[in-house]
Amino acid sequence: MTITITAFETSPDGGKGLARDTRIRWALEEVGQPYEVRLVSFGAMKEAAHLALHPFGQIPTYEEGDLGLFETGAIVLHIAQRHAGLLPEDANARARAITWMFAALNTVEPPILELANARLLEGDKPWSGQRMPLVENRVRDRLGQLSRRLGDAGWLDGAFSAGDLMMVSVLLRLKASGMLDEFPNLSAYVARGETRPAYKRAFAAQLAVNRPSAG
Amino acid sequence: MTITITAFETSPDGGKGLARDTRIRWALEEVGQPYEVRLVSFGAMKEAAHLALHPFGQIPTYEEGDLGLFETGAIVLHIAQRHAGLLPEDANARARAITWMFAALNTVEPPILELANARLLEGDKPWSGQRMPLVENRVRDRLGQLSRRLGDAGWLDGAFSAGDLMMVSVLLRLKASGMLDEFPNLSAYVARGETRPAYKRAFAAQLAVNRPSAG
Repeated sequence: MTITITAFETSPDGGKGLARDTRIRWALEEVGQPYEVRLVSFGAMKEAAHLALHPFGQIPTYEEGDLGLFETGAIVLHIAQRHAGLLPEDANARARAITWMFAALNTVEPPILELANARLLEGDKPWSGQRMPLVENRVRDRLGQLSRRLGDAGWLDGAFSAGDLMMVSVLLRLKASGMLDEFPNLSAYVARGETRPAYKRAFAAQLAVNRPSAG
Repeated sequence: MTITITAFETSPDGGKGLARDTRIRWALEEVGQPYEVRLVSFGAMKEAAHLALHPFGQIPTYEEGDLGLFETGAIVLHIAQRHAGLLPEDANARARAITWMFAALNTVEPPILELANARLLEGDKPWSGQRMPLVENRVRDRLGQLSRRLGDAGWLDGAFSAGDLMMVSVLLRLKASGMLDEFPNLSAYVARGETRPAYKRAFAAQLAVNRPSAG
């Protein structure tokens, strides 16, 4: 059955790979599943047809036969549970890998989203300069904890898993801020993710949509 | 095998049921699994023994034999996948229920956490009054989308599932704000969750820890 995902017709990041379809592309590349992409404009994302698939009017979505899913974490988990390559066989190790997926999305990403909001939605507000260090320190607290847990390991729990895919994807949002450089093991961890062939193919695929001339 | 979870020795909410151990208690009550609770002080949460179990120094955690998990979403999913009562049998319906778990944690909860931060951590800052409507409106946008999707249905996708457990738990954080009252179907949805016998038992169990005299 054909897998079809949705992606921005024009990504707000201009092809830096930060739109969430990259996470789905990466997961599909890791497990070797081909997929098709339907591009959606900002206008169409808020229309009834897309809202029927994604109640919050965002991308990505995932369609396969009768199944329609939204929410990046759920889609990556669905792919990881159905195809080999993103979750360990052992039941306990599998549960731990899934724990890291949730940790990426519900513990590490929220302060990073708050930082993005502070910059993109409140950068012109009178409180922006005074408030920014507070928001940055909330991110730093999480990065420090993650850095201590990772230590000098290659991945978060044994072999590369969907948990690492999600954590690297979340941390990639910080690359431009320079904040990752304060934690050299996290920088190296993110770089390790970026050098995976599956990530490279996913990145190239989203770039081809957003900057056709870059290929 | 005995299931042991951790909870606050003294919850910051004084027993309103908003600490995340309530979500785990609720899930265990829905599937009829007994559990033990180890209470952790704020000091002990930041010590090596607890950090080995939970790298971000929070509660809840979940231990069962050799398995140690952290992250509420992962723990609820683990319980739901191993015991009947929180996920539908049909594979597609199951994937959709899991989608709602992620939607609760990664789409609906982040703006609610930001609102909590704005009140608890920044309530005394000079920008607080001017900024608050912005933060509240981000929550309202999500609530409006969720309200439109729920419509007059009882639960988000057919029968009650782990997705509803998580969404109701996330929305409960807004109860004191009065913001839920702007969306009568969401208020009714949350109330529907609260009247489930399993929720009532979970709520009573956390209350017994935090206000022993209330029982």
